[in-house]
Amino acid sequence: MKLLRYGALGAEKPGLMDADGQIRDLSGVIDDIAGDTLGDAALDKLRSVDPASLPVVDGSPRIGACVGHVGKFICIGLNYADHAAESGLALPEEPVIFFKATSSVCGPNDDTEIPRTSVKTDWEVELGVVIGKHTKYVSKEDALDHVAGYCVVNDLSERDFQLHRSGQWVKGKSCDTFGPIGPWLVTRDEVADPQNLPMYLEVNGHRYQDGSTATMHFDVATVISHLSQFMSLQPGDVISTGTPPGVGLGQKPEVYLKPGDKMELGIEGLGVQHQTVVAG
Amino acid sequence: MKLLRYGALGAEKPGLMDADGQIRDLSGVIDDIAGDTLGDAALDKLRSVDPASLPVVDGSPRIGACVGHVGKFICIGLNYADHAAESGLALPEEPVIFFKATSSVCGPNDDTEIPRTSVKTDWEVELGVVIGKHTKYVSKEDALDHVAGYCVVNDLSERDFQLHRSGQWVKGKSCDTFGPIGPWLVTRDEVADPQNLPMYLEVNGHRYQDGSTATMHFDVATVISHLSQFMSLQPGDVISTGTPPGVGLGQKPEVYLKPGDKMELGIEGLGVQHQTVVAG
Repeated sequence: MKLLRYGALGAEKPGLMDADGQIRDLSGVIDDIAGDTLGDAALDKLRSVDPASLPVVDGSPRIGACVGHVGKFICIGLNYADHAAESGLALPEEPVIFFKATSSVCGPNDDTEIPRTSVKTDWEVELGVVIGKHTKYVSKEDALDHVAGYCVVNDLSERDFQLHRSGQWVKGKSCDTFGPIGPWLVTRDEVADPQNLPMYLEVNGHRYQDGSTATMHFDVATVISHLSQFMSLQPGDVISTGTPPGVGLGQKPEVYLKPGDKMELGIEGLGVQHQTVVAG
Repeated sequence: MKLLRYGALGAEKPGLMDADGQIRDLSGVIDDIAGDTLGDAALDKLRSVDPASLPVVDGSPRIGACVGHVGKFICIGLNYADHAAESGLALPEEPVIFFKATSSVCGPNDDTEIPRTSVKTDWEVELGVVIGKHTKYVSKEDALDHVAGYCVVNDLSERDFQLHRSGQWVKGKSCDTFGPIGPWLVTRDEVADPQNLPMYLEVNGHRYQDGSTATMHFDVATVISHLSQFMSLQPGDVISTGTPPGVGLGQKPEVYLKPGDKMELGIEGLGVQHQTVVAG
C-alpha cells in the first residue's frame, strides 16, 4: 500500500494512493497514519479494505508528511562511502547516529525555509524507514520485521550550523521545514529490496545526486539492530539512513540553496518530492 | 503551582501538589499536563481552581514525568565551567545543543536501567525548562515569557556510548529511563530566580554534585533565544540546561553506576528524585 496524509498542516487526514493514482480517503477506517496504525495487524486490516470502496479525494490537496506524530526523527551520518569522502570525513566504524528535531518534519512539497542567519543550506536525498512496532535489542536477522514501510526524506542541513557552531550536528539539522517526508509510506511488502533502490536529487533541473541504496555502508537491518542497542524504537519513529554523494558541500566550488531554487528528489517506487526554497 | 502526573506508565493522570503536600486530581479539569495546557491562559485558568475543591488522591501512586508527550528533549552541553573542566573539554563559545530521545523520558522515581553493553553509566542533575508556547527567533529579553515552568532532570549518560562510539553524543544520552523528569512542573511565577537555585545529586548517600544554577555559563534566557534561532520550540518541549561539576566521569578514579545503587537528586523548590539502578 501507498499510505499518505493529505490536507492542511496539522489537520491532515489519512489516505491511500490507489492503483490509478487517485487519493482515497481513509478517515472512515483509521484516525491517522501514525503510531499503532503502523503495526502488522493494523496494516493487514487496512489491506483487507477494497480501495474502490473508499471515497475519492477530489482536486489536488496538500500532501503532508506520510507519518503523523513522529516520535523520533533519527538519522545515520556518513553512511555512503563516497559521501563521507566528499565531506572530508572518514567512514565510521559503526553507524553514526544523530537526531533531527521532530518540529522539522513537513510535507514532501512544502516550501523549504532558509533560516535567517543561514549561509550554507544544503540537500540530502535519503531512504526513510518507518518503524512499525516496539523495538529494543533486536537482532539484525529480525530487524526488518520491525519496519512498517519506506519513504523519501530530504535531510536538509545547514552546514555552517552543523559543523562550525559549537559542535553536535543537530544544530544544523533541525530547522523548521528541514524534514520533508513522503509523499507515501510504501509498506514493506511492496519494497522487494530496500538495498537496491535508485535515488536522485535535482536543483533547478541539474542532477546533483544520482545514487542507489545499493552503496549504503551499513544496511537498513544493521542500522535498526544497532540503534536498538542504544534506545528503544516506537511505531512512527522515522530513521533516515544517510545520503549518497552529490550534496552542495561536496561541489567544487560549494553550492548552496537560495530563495527561488526548486528541488526535485525521488527514490524508485517511493515517489517524488518537489520543494521551492524561500527566505525564512 | 506544582503540577504533576501520577499513575501507571503511559496512563498518567494530571494532578497538582497542594500546600499541604497532598496530591489533588486534575482529571476533571484538564486531560493532561502537556502541549496546549502549558500556555499562560490555560495555566491562569488552572490557577483559578481552588485546590480544596479537587479530589485528594489516596495512597502513594507512582509519579510520572511531569510533562506528557514531550515533543523535543533538548540538552545543553558543557554549560557549567567547572563541569567542562572536569570533562577535559573547553568551554564553548555558544551553547552546545544535543538531543535525548523522547523515549528516554520516565518518572522521577522510576528505576534506572543500565543498558546491556554499558560500562560507564553516569548521572547529571540539571535544571529542566518546560516551554509553554510556540517560540521562534525570540529575543533574550522575551525568552522567559515562553517558559511554562521548571523541573528537575537527571540527564543520565553512558560515557562510552557518548564519546567513543563513532561520534554524536545522542548515542549515550537516549537509552530507556535515561531521562527522569519531575516530580513537579513548578510554574514560572513560583520560581523567583532560575539562576539562583541550589542543586545536588547523591549516590548511595555520598554527595557527588553540589552546585547552583548561579554558575551556569549561558543562562536560561540566552539558551532559549539561541535555540530558537535554529529550530522552533513547541509547548511541552523540555530543555535540560547542563550540569554542575561532580559527575562520575570527573572523579579520580572515575565512578559509574551499578545495579543496586541509589541516586537522590534535587533542586531547591523543584522537588527531589530517587532512582534505584537495575540491570537492563
